[in-house]
Amino acid sequence: MLRVHQGRASKAGLAPGSVVYTGEVEVETVTIELFRYDEGQLTEHQVSGLEQALALREPGQISWYNITGLHETELIQAFGEAFGLHPLVREDIASVGQRPKVELFEAHLFIVLRMLSLTEDGSPQSEQLSLVLGPDYVLTFQERPGDVFAPVRERLRRGKGRMRKLGADYLAYALIDVIVDSYFSVLEHYGDTLEELEEEILREPTPHSLERVNRLRRELLFLRKSIWPLRELMGTLQREESPVVSAVVVTFLRDAYDHSIQVIDTVETFREVLSGLHDFYLTSLSFKMNEVMKVLTIIATIFIPLGFLVGVYGMNFDVMPELHLRWGYPALWLFMVTLVAAMLVLFRRRRWL
Amino acid sequence: MLRVHQGRASKAGLAPGSVVYTGEVEVETVTIELFRYDEGQLTEHQVSGLEQALALREPGQISWYNITGLHETELIQAFGEAFGLHPLVREDIASVGQRPKVELFEAHLFIVLRMLSLTEDGSPQSEQLSLVLGPDYVLTFQERPGDVFAPVRERLRRGKGRMRKLGADYLAYALIDVIVDSYFSVLEHYGDTLEELEEEILREPTPHSLERVNRLRRELLFLRKSIWPLRELMGTLQREESPVVSAVVVTFLRDAYDHSIQVIDTVETFREVLSGLHDFYLTSLSFKMNEVMKVLTIIATIFIPLGFLVGVYGMNFDVMPELHLRWGYPALWLFMVTLVAAMLVLFRRRRWL
Amino acid sequence: MLRVHQGRASKAGLAPGSVVYTGEVEVETVTIELFRYDEGQLTEHQVSGLEQALALREPGQISWYNITGLHETELIQAFGEAFGLHPLVREDIASVGQRPKVELFEAHLFIVLRMLSLTEDGSPQSEQLSLVLGPDYVLTFQERPGDVFAPVRERLRRGKGRMRKLGADYLAYALIDVIVDSYFSVLEHYGDTLEELEEEILREPTPHSLERVNRLRRELLFLRKSIWPLRELMGTLQREESPVVSAVVVTFLRDAYDHSIQVIDTVETFREVLSGLHDFYLTSLSFKMNEVMKVLTIIATIFIPLGFLVGVYGMNFDVMPELHLRWGYPALWLFMVTLVAAMLVLFRRRRWL
Amino acid sequence: MLRVHQGRASKAGLAPGSVVYTGEVEVETVTIELFRYDEGQLTEHQVSGLEQALALREPGQISWYNITGLHETELIQAFGEAFGLHPLVREDIASVGQRPKVELFEAHLFIVLRMLSLTEDGSPQSEQLSLVLGPDYVLTFQERPGDVFAPVRERLRRGKGRMRKLGADYLAYALIDVIVDSYFSVLEHYGDTLEELEEEILREPTPHSLERVNRLRRELLFLRKSIWPLRELMGTLQREESPVVSAVVVTFLRDAYDHSIQVIDTVETFREVLSGLHDFYLTSLSFKMNEVMKVLTIIATIFIPLGFLVGVYGMNFDVMPELHLRWGYPALWLFMVTLVAAMLVLFRRRRWL
Amino acid sequence: MLRVHQGRASKAGLAPGSVVYTGEVEVETVTIELFRYDEGQLTEHQVSGLEQALALREPGQISWYNITGLHETELIQAFGEAFGLHPLVREDIASVGQRPKVELFEAHLFIVLRMLSLTEDGSPQSEQLSLVLGPDYVLTFQERPGDVFAPVRERLRRGKGRMRKLGADYLAYALIDVIVDSYFSVLEHYGDTLEELEEEILREPTPHSLERVNRLRRELLFLRKSIWPLRELMGTLQREESPVVSAVVVTFLRDAYDHSIQVIDTVETFREVLSGLHDFYLTSLSFKMNEVMKVLTIIATIFIPLGFLVGVYGMNFDVMPELHLRWGYPALWLFMVTLVAAMLVLFRRRRWL
Repeated sequence: MLRVHQGRASKAGLAPGSVVYTGEVEVETVTIELFRYDEGQLTEHQVSGLEQALALREPGQISWYNITGLHETELIQAFGEAFGLHPLVREDIASVGQRPKVELFEAHLFIVLRMLSLTEDGSPQSEQLSLVLGPDYVLTFQERPGDVFAPVRERLRRGKGRMRKLGADYLAYALIDVIVDSYFSVLEHYGDTLEELEEEILREPTPHSLERVNRLRRELLFLRKSIWPLRELMGTLQREESPVVSAVVVTFLRDAYDHSIQVIDTVETFREVLSGLHDFYLTSLSFKMNEVMKVLTIIATIFIPLGFLVGVYGMNFDVMPELHLRWGYPALWLFMVTLVAAMLVLFRRRRWL
Repeated sequence: MLRVHQGRASKAGLAPGSVVYTGEVEVETVTIELFRYDEGQLTEHQVSGLEQALALREPGQISWYNITGLHETELIQAFGEAFGLHPLVREDIASVGQRPKVELFEAHLFIVLRMLSLTEDGSPQSEQLSLVLGPDYVLTFQERPGDVFAPVRERLRRGKGRMRKLGADYLAYALIDVIVDSYFSVLEHYGDTLEELEEEILREPTPHSLERVNRLRRELLFLRKSIWPLRELMGTLQREESPVVSAVVVTFLRDAYDHSIQVIDTVETFREVLSGLHDFYLTSLSFKMNEVMKVLTIIATIFIPLGFLVGVYGMNFDVMPELHLRWGYPALWLFMVTLVAAMLVLFRRRRWL
Repeated sequence: MLRVHQGRASKAGLAPGSVVYTGEVEVETVTIELFRYDEGQLTEHQVSGLEQALALREPGQISWYNITGLHETELIQAFGEAFGLHPLVREDIASVGQRPKVELFEAHLFIVLRMLSLTEDGSPQSEQLSLVLGPDYVLTFQERPGDVFAPVRERLRRGKGRMRKLGADYLAYALIDVIVDSYFSVLEHYGDTLEELEEEILREPTPHSLERVNRLRRELLFLRKSIWPLRELMGTLQREESPVVSAVVVTFLRDAYDHSIQVIDTVETFREVLSGLHDFYLTSLSFKMNEVMKVLTIIATIFIPLGFLVGVYGMNFDVMPELHLRWGYPALWLFMVTLVAAMLVLFRRRRWL
Repeated sequence: MLRVHQGRASKAGLAPGSVVYTGEVEVETVTIELFRYDEGQLTEHQVSGLEQALALREPGQISWYNITGLHETELIQAFGEAFGLHPLVREDIASVGQRPKVELFEAHLFIVLRMLSLTEDGSPQSEQLSLVLGPDYVLTFQERPGDVFAPVRERLRRGKGRMRKLGADYLAYALIDVIVDSYFSVLEHYGDTLEELEEEILREPTPHSLERVNRLRRELLFLRKSIWPLRELMGTLQREESPVVSAVVVTFLRDAYDHSIQVIDTVETFREVLSGLHDFYLTSLSFKMNEVMKVLTIIATIFIPLGFLVGVYGMNFDVMPELHLRWGYPALWLFMVTLVAAMLVLFRRRRWL
Repeated sequence: MLRVHQGRASKAGLAPGSVVYTGEVEVETVTIELFRYDEGQLTEHQVSGLEQALALREPGQISWYNITGLHETELIQAFGEAFGLHPLVREDIASVGQRPKVELFEAHLFIVLRMLSLTEDGSPQSEQLSLVLGPDYVLTFQERPGDVFAPVRERLRRGKGRMRKLGADYLAYALIDVIVDSYFSVLEHYGDTLEELEEEILREPTPHSLERVNRLRRELLFLRKSIWPLRELMGTLQREESPVVSAVVVTFLRDAYDHSIQVIDTVETFREVLSGLHDFYLTSLSFKMNEVMKVLTIIATIFIPLGFLVGVYGMNFDVMPELHLRWGYPALWLFMVTLVAAMLVLFRRRRWL
């Protein structure tokens, strides 16, 4: 997770605008999924070449091209040329370690987001989603198959509600919205993990829980790095006027902005809770150590002096008058019992018992 | 308390504007309480259906609809349509995990606040209160029966003071004001708890106090998350001009803003006090451990060498001339007493005694 | 000190603008002290009723009413009406837990400050001072007799300098200035306490010093809460244009602003010094513990094995050839001395000695 | 690495604008490398004197002078005069401890950056790069041979793409871009080191890892000091309008700005990870100490009392009836075994075993 | 160093504008040093009275009055009147605990700075320097003889460069510049001290190093308090337009601003390094403690059980069959050696050895 802007270092020195895929995922075939719709009708296509894809565009209808697989960079280049994307936009689409951001161009708007998911072992994983919003089209680029867009597709198909009535900007908003929504699921997982971990530490602090605290801290740092720029991104989207975003959609973006703030708040709260757990763990350890030391000290303080005493009467000096007293042995016992009693009283006073 | 935006995750993928209740409270019957008043008169109604409720509106009078129970979302939808609320507002009313916020629309103003209260075991609880302020009406939506509005109702009934003379905006302000006021009671509880906890830790740090520190820290984090957005909310209310808020009420909102700042300040101070308590606890433990170790070391340092000495004269070597000396035994005692005295002096010098 | 906005909670639910005294001080008689002056003359009065007080006003002269005692709220109400104060101002005067603030009204300016002093046992105490500045009058409200205004009174009486030449705004400035000046005395006390505490901890860390650290931390938090809003307050005073503050006085306010910044800086520096002291204390403890443990370990490491050795030759086996050797006893001593010497060398190498 | 603004102190008191080299590198011969190009052609020169260098300039072509070696300050002066650089710019070029910054003058733009690299032992090293951008020239000044500009040279030579078509401003951008890119390599090294260190600490915390943590912390502080001002610098470059920067290049600068933010984010994340590692290390130590103490306490608690018991029956009192009981010895063993069993049960209950 | 705004408390209650010296330095004679110059000529005077000083002014020439010694406040008053300084400026000059600041008046500009130096025992010392810049004069006030202005004087005398050509504003800038430059020397000293301290702690943490860490922390806090306001001061100087500062000099001030930022950065970096050192120290202690405890535990775990065993066979029961076995004694030895070996294996496995 500490990898620095994936593949960025290996790209150092290439001309700005060089479209080089910096990720590691190579899907078998790059697929282009097209939804073309207006209020009345919707057609879905699954095409594989750019030309075919472009031929399917129809004026007056909105087209959503969802490209999965980025290693064939010629395709990105071709799309870029067909839709007039700035060379740096093309580069950023392929260079999958971008910080979430929004960039405004005259004829379109370029947004980079991160789709978060959990791998099977519960560690977070992120994938870059690049979105280009034009007057009557939306392009989305993702690295691997599998995304969170199913509900949007469903709503498009059903054709009810605002989805098909409003323009491409509403579609873009809907896509952003499901991505931000999906963050809540990831965070929910972390909320549960934190609660579990807290109970574990309250019950019995083990090195295993410490390792989990450390791992969680790292993962939250990772999440935060992916989520933090959202605030700025959403703020820009809402504030800046762009010809491709209508006033109606701006109101919806305000809602997405609120959700982003909430996501960020939650990550920060989790980080604080975790830091509190670490402190609690450390202090619990100190307390337990204290208890252990008290036991040791009580035992040692009672029995080491006694041990000395009985050692004295185990000596073999010729002249040791006490040894020959009739009541010597029971007297010694009496003395030792009294000593122990006195010590116990003392410990009780010091609140060690 | 670590739940992430209640129910948000389960809603992921629904169309924006879907009115889905995300809370867990299901009141038996949703009640609609209506106060309709002008300077001269006031009528109170307890109705159960929307149509009946709307029929009771009267031009020239101010209507306050207080809806308790959110799980019948059709009612929210119906209210929304009747008062022209934006679909996202309707969604937010039912989606009860909103961050406190204010949203300005042309004909009305939408405010989300959190009502804080303490459960029986003293942990904090919060409930979303959504408030819509129109030119001559106020709508409030709450999840469960029981709120902090009693004084406002009382003032409305008595009909003295500004309450009935000023418009719906003053009513909205009065409602916000009692909510912020109620935070002070919750904070007072925490102030007392902190003082109590401090005394407990000063007297004797136990693991129980540590757990309380940890729990308080969590609860204050929770409070802070509910209260922190108030500053921004109140600032917006005061700054932004809205046709439904008159200049007179803006002055009052300034007062509510001051109170919000004070509430936030107090939460932050409590958090600092708590963090100080934790440090104090940890350092106290270290001090106590130090004391325990000193006792152990003193006892061990005195008696282990003495134990060795008496062990020497317990040996059974055939040739051990000291054993046959007449003054051997008392001489050994003398030596040991001197040794102990010397050690005590040394310890005193090192300030261990 | 953890009390939340004194009495605020008990007031919850009252109509905004209700004038309720929330403090605990009940002076025997509320006194109204009046200074009426212009450049040429000054008259002082000590009146007890409002009517009498108002009758003494004289056009063309500046009047300073200093009201001591706030529990007779009717008086505040009456003053409020006589000078046209906003209901919320009247409320704030009586509600003595306000955060320092300034509020601009058309005909006057309302300032809330806190007068700090030290109680006899050296803990800080604060009292709300409300100040209303009008075109030709200044009203000050304080809870209990005793304030820091003596030098201002003296300068008024002597009649030299700017004091009597400039208007009511200069008087208000002079009052604010002596209040901020008085903070320096309080801080000086804390500076001394910190230096003392540091020496104490350097010499010998005791639990008593830890408690003092903790108490100081709390007191500085309290001071900070009273002082921190000063920056904003003074900034507003300086920036905002008000008809009752002349340009001449604005220059003086700039000076008061500088002093406020200095006061705040000092509190923050003290907090950092204190936090450094706490760390130093904790680390000193660790160091001492280390030393104690080293002593214990050295003694135990030397004498426990020796104890075992002499134990061996105290056994009563029939066949133990060593016991019958002539040089057995001295040889054992030789062995033991050598062992101890070797250990001492080892300890020295590990820098334990 | 704690050196304060290299050589700055020794320069104290010189007139502002004094061109004094404050670094320590003295290259054998100062070299001036010239690239002169337009879209059609490119010539490269390696000259050693200023006059020769200037003679090679040609109107209508872009010239990039890359000067390596700063100790011959007359050369800087001469360049400064030839290109009309402000005396303070000349001073800053030679005074190689500048904070990264950008300064806008009427006819040119002055940028200071730091080139980061890793020395052979893996510690970071930085070198000041001063860049002056005029309408048709770029000057770069570096302290020692070896830079990160190879890819830019290569692109110039190949002459494809934007490199030769756009103006001097694009060249300047390309140079800045490769510098920022090179930061990613340095950060990648730190990412790897951190991961390695984390594994080391998870496996077994040694003092060596602690020293590495401390050293890394220092190095990241150093990196941060070099990188942090980039944000402001890039922001200024993008925002401020300068006649020498065209609109086309501003778009590219926005990209460089994004990369800078990413670099800064990464450094901050690394600092947090490191701080987490330190906490983890400390807590691990506490845990291990706890374990060690438990073992000690268990052993001592079991065997010190037993030692006392057997000591009792090693005493030589004349009258000790137990010694003469037939079953005394096995009974004692039985008692001791029972005692040990009881203790083990107790330890198990306290979760010490 | 914890003194609060020197002497401020003792001044409490005096009228604003009272010129009272709050420092402790009383120079024998207050000296007035005058440099009067234009491009062509320079005369230097050492005068002692104000009248003489003023008589030496000459229209068309720039005068720099450097006053050393502030306890004769009449002189400050007289200068203030002669140059039309605001009463608060006069007060601030004498009241030597000002926070660095700049104040703009119509006809002049008032700057307060702190000159830092190191006392003989290496602790930092600061002295207030007040500077008044008028159209053709500069006044500087310092508490005690000895300053950092020698290079400025030298440049004035040599008469080359900008020094004598530009106006009084350039002189003021030159003075500010040497003061900021002198901070670098002080910081260099701290850089060295930190490096030294780090090596000391890496080698062997002693309580002495801890005290040094604590002292350094205090001193850096002190430096920071003196240096931090520079940023704002320099920013104001650069931004605000003043008739007495020409555009040429503003460019130079930008340079001084950069240096101030660098100084502040360095202080902050040092503070972080120091805090890192403290953590390192504490963790090192923990590690050493761990090592010590391991040794103790190993010794105790091996020899206490063995001690018990030999104690068993030192008992004097009549019936102890083992004692009479022929191989009893060597068998016991064998058993004990095996036991020790087993334990060593166990310790090795737990990585304690």
